[in-house]
Amino acid sequence: MAARLDLRALGEFGLIEAIRRRAGDAGRAWRASIGDDGAVLRARPGRELVLTADALVEGVHFRWRTTDARSLGRKALAVNLSDLGAMGATPLGFLLTLCLPGEPGAVSERQLDGLLGGMLAEAKAAACPLVGGDTVRAPCWSLQLTAVGDVPRGRALTRAGARPGDRLLVTGSIGGAALGLRLLEAGRPLAGALGGFARRQILPRPPWRLGARLVRARLATAAIDLSDGLALDLEHLVRRSRVAAEVRIEALPLARGLRAACPELGLDALETALHGGEDYELLFCVPPAAPSARVLAGRLGVRLSEIGVICRGRGVRFLRGGAPTEIRVGGYDHFKPSAS
Amino acid sequence: MAARLDLRALGEFGLIEAIRRRAGDAGRAWRASIGDDGAVLRARPGRELVLTADALVEGVHFRWRTTDARSLGRKALAVNLSDLGAMGATPLGFLLTLCLPGEPGAVSERQLDGLLGGMLAEAKAAACPLVGGDTVRAPCWSLQLTAVGDVPRGRALTRAGARPGDRLLVTGSIGGAALGLRLLEAGRPLAGALGGFARRQILPRPPWRLGARLVRARLATAAIDLSDGLALDLEHLVRRSRVAAEVRIEALPLARGLRAACPELGLDALETALHGGEDYELLFCVPPAAPSARVLAGRLGVRLSEIGVICRGRGVRFLRGGAPTEIRVGGYDHFKPSAS
Repeated sequence: MAARLDLRALGEFGLIEAIRRRAGDAGRAWRASIGDDGAVLRARPGRELVLTADALVEGVHFRWRTTDARSLGRKALAVNLSDLGAMGATPLGFLLTLCLPGEPGAVSERQLDGLLGGMLAEAKAAACPLVGGDTVRAPCWSLQLTAVGDVPRGRALTRAGARPGDRLLVTGSIGGAALGLRLLEAGRPLAGALGGFARRQILPRPPWRLGARLVRARLATAAIDLSDGLALDLEHLVRRSRVAAEVRIEALPLARGLRAACPELGLDALETALHGGEDYELLFCVPPAAPSARVLAGRLGVRLSEIGVICRGRGVRFLRGGAPTEIRVGGYDHFKPSAS
Repeated sequence: MAARLDLRALGEFGLIEAIRRRAGDAGRAWRASIGDDGAVLRARPGRELVLTADALVEGVHFRWRTTDARSLGRKALAVNLSDLGAMGATPLGFLLTLCLPGEPGAVSERQLDGLLGGMLAEAKAAACPLVGGDTVRAPCWSLQLTAVGDVPRGRALTRAGARPGDRLLVTGSIGGAALGLRLLEAGRPLAGALGGFARRQILPRPPWRLGARLVRARLATAAIDLSDGLALDLEHLVRRSRVAAEVRIEALPLARGLRAACPELGLDALETALHGGEDYELLFCVPPAAPSARVLAGRLGVRLSEIGVICRGRGVRFLRGGAPTEIRVGGYDHFKPSAS
């Protein structure tokens, strides 16, 4: 049995001290970190700072019955690294607002240990130390992270730079995490390939390192990370860039096994891939004459698929066998009823 | 009757768009802001960045029955400006993670309008624009803010710089907000002076501008903002600075009317002032030979009290009529039962 952590005995400052000890030294980029009113960053000359915020809330983004604390900790940082990567930024550090239920026994030592352990392991691997934040009592668990990274001056990747003629590329595969979520919610036994989908939802591995490489090579014109489903995220990108996009359905990298597994749950594989969300892959645009981004991605072990092209106009069009096909644009929206 | 806001109809992206329109342009310091994966800050040469995080959670930090939305929005930013000020930083911008109950009708248009209106008014007055964040569904309202500011390189005020001989100064008055909270929780009618205590709790006005002035004048050696009560916050400061402090009880600037109002609620005025929390005043140290900080503070309309001195040793000692007196060190702790 996991020991229950008595937060009332430990107290807010005991908890902060415990986190501070586990987080260790923030490294040379930081002049002050956990334990002061704020963290102080030594910004490097010729660089600009990128700030992202992404939160995970119990009962909304995760349930304790379908995740483990360590994966949750890793995921909380990973989704913020994904945002940094989509801006072409190199991570420098992050702040954590940790909301915990205050009743005695509501938080177990194993949960808190696992969560911090997972988050700090991810932080170490990304050279992105925990440098500050806040700890508060709340009705349920939630983690609000703000990550900081930097980019060479004037070269952050935004959603707004795509130009007609640009090729549209996406990393990895799509739809797996969305299917995983449905499997977890349905309480299905997760043998074989199904377990892979669930793991993909519980612990995404965004290819965030690619973003800074694309910036360094001056390869990409615009980028967005896939959190709400490719269809909706691409819609965001073309709207901000004031362009249109054509996507070839056949070129979409559906997660392996998705077509086989979806019907059993009454799902359409293509809809799941386009609207499911939580892929945490990188969708980006490169000019037509640019050298291949495949070499860069290959060095990081990241697979790339060219799925379409940017054109003049507005909106996203889907083509099947070269002919336009109707696809409803949906995606994950926090405040709208589920699309499927 | 306030119109209920149908978040399901508006959706996450409708909400973000509404916030984006209200927030307006972030100004020249920001290359990208709301509506991308991250915000991009043009850091100024010779400056270092300061990052702070502070959250307000419904049922823990506020209750709708005792606050109005506009004050809550202002307070959420004000407490982060207080942290920036305590680091000697000038605000540059902030990120907001807005957690909202998702059930239809749980959020009224007036609440959301008031909250954003208050926050953005505070932002405008502080030249600290909203530049990014996240909007998520959650079981209750909460606001997690991360504020960014900057300081001249190497000159951030931390808790760690106090030296024996330094004078100990505090702005404004203490204890009023804590009494205000007790009055609000007791549901007392808030006529006359009592209303002032309540307002102080609902809408603190931290003297955050003083921090950057102290840095510019190279006057202060260490600082902390008073959020958990002077006794506990001073304890944090002396521990980080590895010094001791002597505080003259007679010199403490108790809020006007506190001594008269406390007994009626069964409270001790001194305990309320020392342990109550949420004063959001600035406690700081200046070298013995430094010119008076009073002139600087006076220009900002901020009252200063010299309440003691930093000495060798460890811990905080309280003196009454020059003789040591026993004061229990308490203060607000999120995970410990209330001290009083």
